[in-house]
Amino acid sequence: MAVYTDVSDEELDVFIASYDIGALTSFKGIAEGVENSNYLVHAEAGPFILTLYEKRVRPEDLPYFLGLMEHLAAHGISCPLPVRDREGRILRELAGRPAVLISFLEGLWVRRPGIAHCAGLGAGLAQFHLAGLDFDMQRANDLSLPGWRELFDEVRDSADGAIPGLKDEIAGELDYLGANWASGLPEGVIHADLFPDNVFFLDDKLSGLIDFYFACNDMLAYDVAVCLNAWCFEPDASFNITKARAMLQAYERVRPLTHAELDALPLLARGAALRFLLTRTYDLLNTDANALVKTKDPNEYLRKLRFHQSVTSYRDYGIGEH
Amino acid sequence: MAVYTDVSDEELDVFIASYDIGALTSFKGIAEGVENSNYLVHAEAGPFILTLYEKRVRPEDLPYFLGLMEHLAAHGISCPLPVRDREGRILRELAGRPAVLISFLEGLWVRRPGIAHCAGLGAGLAQFHLAGLDFDMQRANDLSLPGWRELFDEVRDSADGAIPGLKDEIAGELDYLGANWASGLPEGVIHADLFPDNVFFLDDKLSGLIDFYFACNDMLAYDVAVCLNAWCFEPDASFNITKARAMLQAYERVRPLTHAELDALPLLARGAALRFLLTRTYDLLNTDANALVKTKDPNEYLRKLRFHQSVTSYRDYGIGEH
Repeated sequence: MAVYTDVSDEELDVFIASYDIGALTSFKGIAEGVENSNYLVHAEAGPFILTLYEKRVRPEDLPYFLGLMEHLAAHGISCPLPVRDREGRILRELAGRPAVLISFLEGLWVRRPGIAHCAGLGAGLAQFHLAGLDFDMQRANDLSLPGWRELFDEVRDSADGAIPGLKDEIAGELDYLGANWASGLPEGVIHADLFPDNVFFLDDKLSGLIDFYFACNDMLAYDVAVCLNAWCFEPDASFNITKARAMLQAYERVRPLTHAELDALPLLARGAALRFLLTRTYDLLNTDANALVKTKDPNEYLRKLRFHQSVTSYRDYGIGEH
Repeated sequence: MAVYTDVSDEELDVFIASYDIGALTSFKGIAEGVENSNYLVHAEAGPFILTLYEKRVRPEDLPYFLGLMEHLAAHGISCPLPVRDREGRILRELAGRPAVLISFLEGLWVRRPGIAHCAGLGAGLAQFHLAGLDFDMQRANDLSLPGWRELFDEVRDSADGAIPGLKDEIAGELDYLGANWASGLPEGVIHADLFPDNVFFLDDKLSGLIDFYFACNDMLAYDVAVCLNAWCFEPDASFNITKARAMLQAYERVRPLTHAELDALPLLARGAALRFLLTRTYDLLNTDANALVKTKDPNEYLRKLRFHQSVTSYRDYGIGEH
């Protein structure tokens, strides 16, 4: 839930007039996404999304994100396409913020993904990974091991206030992951945040991916692990192996996982669970009580982490040897 | 900023299928309005707004609000029209809340209204008042004198914590208004909350009125007083007599004010200022710090109240004797 920056009438008029989209007929803040301010814009040329980047996005990363969206769209991935103004510019400024107008993507995100959605997501993720292979910009994953250690340093002293015993549990996991973290696996562009609210469906068919503002270059299978966590657990924290099987099988029909990737999957899933456990703990401890953001429960990801700690093989995720 | 209730996929599918609007293509929470959850819905038949009524709206008042919208639309006022489902029903239930699908109104609300907007608002308000004259349902204004006294009882002990000296200032004003409040003025349906975010414009021309959830039967000139406060002060709290003149002259070209209404205007403006001073003070003192609502500054309305206390005649609002 966002919309942090308010835009003045005059600034908005001048901004919209610099695009070839006709007059504005509606302009409404959208209560989705927590990193940026998003407005749903109706213009004579159709609907668009206007995004103002708030402080959590580094302006120097924007060319990577926007270039990726253009690259993906050109490679057949359904994702928002940045709109160029009359001078050919994508990245603009509005209300003192970096601002981009992007195409509007039809579809709804699914509140409770079913098996068919998990399969659609799996195929879509693999297509995204293949389409990104020849994207030539680079951005490191700042939320991998070194970033987790930095986050832990920031929450170490107060973590037990969020969840009793959390400090020792994270410290132990960080030690384990530091000693065993994967390397040498196929790399490429990963979305790194492909939660259900970033995936649109129409009639149970995937209609598009959005929100590429955590995208970076890292192990492709790590992205699969993020999705295992985000899509294949039930609200009661139980792992739904049927959903995982559907997701992984659909992924592999487009891009088969290597043996090394399969073997690393439980480890990567632990890392992916720790990443969201850490950021949620950080957000919980550092969110101003007056902020207009609903913080998410770190406990959910602690339970997922513990599940993956108990996993002994990728077979526990529903797929057999191959 | 709202969206309190989340809607499950299955419930939404069933709900939308009960209308003759085709399949959903988009469904986004809108970060505007503080009383209800609003979603901008794109369906094959076009855009719509879906409103879920949260706890601040009394379900027994909904037939008045919805009937008024239908009445106004039938009388040429541009306002959202409730959409009937296949069984002819307007008021429905979704996610355990009263729910209504309404037509989408083109236009943008103006962040900083100019003189032309104030004139447009004046004419639109008068047209709304005339159109409501033969609406045959009744709803008392629960935020008039008796309601103000109840609100004051609730904030009396803590008011000075919001603004030092506020308790005595409100008590004195309530005594004055109680002894002098207007009566016998022309009555009808008033909007009672016609702030700039409830009035849409296209190209500086008024394109519609929204949000009738404070509408009630009361003195029409009280509605004018609410708008004087909401539209004719600058951010530095100074009164803009040019905007007031534009608003009142435009109003009077459609519905001339009676002498009694003109004479009562300073008093009504004091009451209208006190009403928002009281509700803002109440909200400030009673909003859970974790709530996803930005509280508004009561000080703004204390300054407006003091301005009207210094007014000696309606001529101070920019219009001459007539």
